[in-house]
Amino acid sequence: MSSRQGVLLRRPAGRPREGDIGFVEVPVPEPGPGQLVVRNTWMSLDPSMRIRMSGGSDDYLPPFAIGEPLAGWAVGTVVASRSAAFAEGDQVMHGSGWRDYALLDEAGPGPETMRPELVSDDVPARWYLGPLGWVGLTSWVGLLDVAVLEEGDRVFVSGAAGAVGGLAVQIADRLGHEVIGSAGTAEKVAHVRSLGASEAFCYKDGPVGKLLAEAAPDGIDVYFDNVGGDHLVAALDVLRPGGRVALCGAVSTYDTAGAVPGPPNLFNAVARGLTLRGFMARMYPHRLGEFRERMREWLAEGSIVYPETVHHGLDAAPAAFADLLAGGNVGKVLVEL
Amino acid sequence: MSSRQGVLLRRPAGRPREGDIGFVEVPVPEPGPGQLVVRNTWMSLDPSMRIRMSGGSDDYLPPFAIGEPLAGWAVGTVVASRSAAFAEGDQVMHGSGWRDYALLDEAGPGPETMRPELVSDDVPARWYLGPLGWVGLTSWVGLLDVAVLEEGDRVFVSGAAGAVGGLAVQIADRLGHEVIGSAGTAEKVAHVRSLGASEAFCYKDGPVGKLLAEAAPDGIDVYFDNVGGDHLVAALDVLRPGGRVALCGAVSTYDTAGAVPGPPNLFNAVARGLTLRGFMARMYPHRLGEFRERMREWLAEGSIVYPETVHHGLDAAPAAFADLLAGGNVGKVLVEL
Repeated sequence: MSSRQGVLLRRPAGRPREGDIGFVEVPVPEPGPGQLVVRNTWMSLDPSMRIRMSGGSDDYLPPFAIGEPLAGWAVGTVVASRSAAFAEGDQVMHGSGWRDYALLDEAGPGPETMRPELVSDDVPARWYLGPLGWVGLTSWVGLLDVAVLEEGDRVFVSGAAGAVGGLAVQIADRLGHEVIGSAGTAEKVAHVRSLGASEAFCYKDGPVGKLLAEAAPDGIDVYFDNVGGDHLVAALDVLRPGGRVALCGAVSTYDTAGAVPGPPNLFNAVARGLTLRGFMARMYPHRLGEFRERMREWLAEGSIVYPETVHHGLDAAPAAFADLLAGGNVGKVLVEL
Repeated sequence: MSSRQGVLLRRPAGRPREGDIGFVEVPVPEPGPGQLVVRNTWMSLDPSMRIRMSGGSDDYLPPFAIGEPLAGWAVGTVVASRSAAFAEGDQVMHGSGWRDYALLDEAGPGPETMRPELVSDDVPARWYLGPLGWVGLTSWVGLLDVAVLEEGDRVFVSGAAGAVGGLAVQIADRLGHEVIGSAGTAEKVAHVRSLGASEAFCYKDGPVGKLLAEAAPDGIDVYFDNVGGDHLVAALDVLRPGGRVALCGAVSTYDTAGAVPGPPNLFNAVARGLTLRGFMARMYPHRLGEFRERMREWLAEGSIVYPETVHHGLDAAPAAFADLLAGGNVGKVLVEL
């Protein structure tokens, strides 16, 4: 029996295309002591994988090596275990996606946040790749711990139809905030409004600065940045004194080779006492338990929705990933394996 | 009897030069009800005046109008008063520098922080333009409230031979931190070391990124930014996870027309969980009392020194100001009137 896995063949120039990612067949691994083997059922596609393909940022996420398997969050079923912590049939979340079968160490490959984790079976396991996992925690801590939401804050979320952005819109709205969202098509804009944004715009309809100023004539207090580039510049122009930016991602820049200039209006931060704070959800693992409890309630009540764009089969993953970077998705992008 | 005052004749192109600032003679004003007239004795020159000359940033400081008097912090002696709060002979700090005689409203021209203020006469009044005024408060809150200094933090201060930077170096050192400073000449670098920096470099000796990486091989936790530009880029490259930047000024950019690109490595903030926070001392008026008490002790003990570059007479002010922007000063730049 063999396992297929995605392999990085070369570093993409610009948007990933055919020939950047290949597939190899390897024997299904056997677990050693303290190890388990998982048949992956779902894997996540995340914009941050693009950075790992360029090998750009050592301290962000480790770069993918040429000729080596790709990786990313996945869930699956334990099919063999020599770990006392995992039994056959268990549902497990872990960081070894892009392959049919994953060989995992119970202690994880490095930081504690990368350890394989049992997930409860009262909800679809794939939700742990989204609202109940790092994606959801990203939206939660980005608003509460990083931007430090305060009563009355007006919140702007870019990439608001995406996985993180869509949850950020809903969380901010459910917590009583006025929300403005941006997205890349008219259809997505309608979706963002349906999530609870009182204003939303398509960033392709004109200069982002103009569109945001029109959508937020009285300014904003918080910007949840998934996009970077022009969006960050636009936000810095309308942030009110004491405003805060949660720097989460900069998907508009990931396909660009070399360094991308920063916002030319960063001095606004001095003039208005603004705070820009970067973060990754893994920096807030202590918030995961409390967050999941709240999110499980919201999902159970149906008061937070969680759209998914689902692709089928590992072969579909490379094109699905390019589509994600092109903004072709609504909500979380998943591949069913 | 007449009063001379500096007037902005045209917006400087690049570094201010002859013909940008002129002088006019006006009658010494008479105070109306609630007003006082002060014979200015000392005025402050601050890099931020350059921004006001360009008219750039409405919410930073109001732009100087063409043909109108310049302004800035000054101290002087009350020579006429129709305010119950001020008597002839009082020493007063206020925002109407660049003139021999200032007509002041006791309620100030706008925000509370701009009100004329009695200063104590047990120290030189000009110290209120420096260590006991907004300059000192800038260094203090930049370290404590904005960068939120924590035990063990390694601190990098740019413009470390300047008024704000020199105090920041000393405060951080006196509070037990390791300090790295940058300045523009070998002489200044020696001065920065004498203030307490364990490492210091001349930023003209090579690429700032290389010089800083050599001076701080184990990285930094806090960057007190007076300079912007290459310095900020260099700092973002060596800041350790959880590092913080107090964005105070960007003097390297003030003479540049148009927008200056931001740091191309701002994404490091995401990868390392960095915080960049802009500020002006006037956003922290509630800290002034406590700060002054501490600083008066330090100054009285002689454990903080406060070098001054003094120019004489209003006519000397325009060239002195250009010299300040060129980095010609050590410590606080003052004009004795």
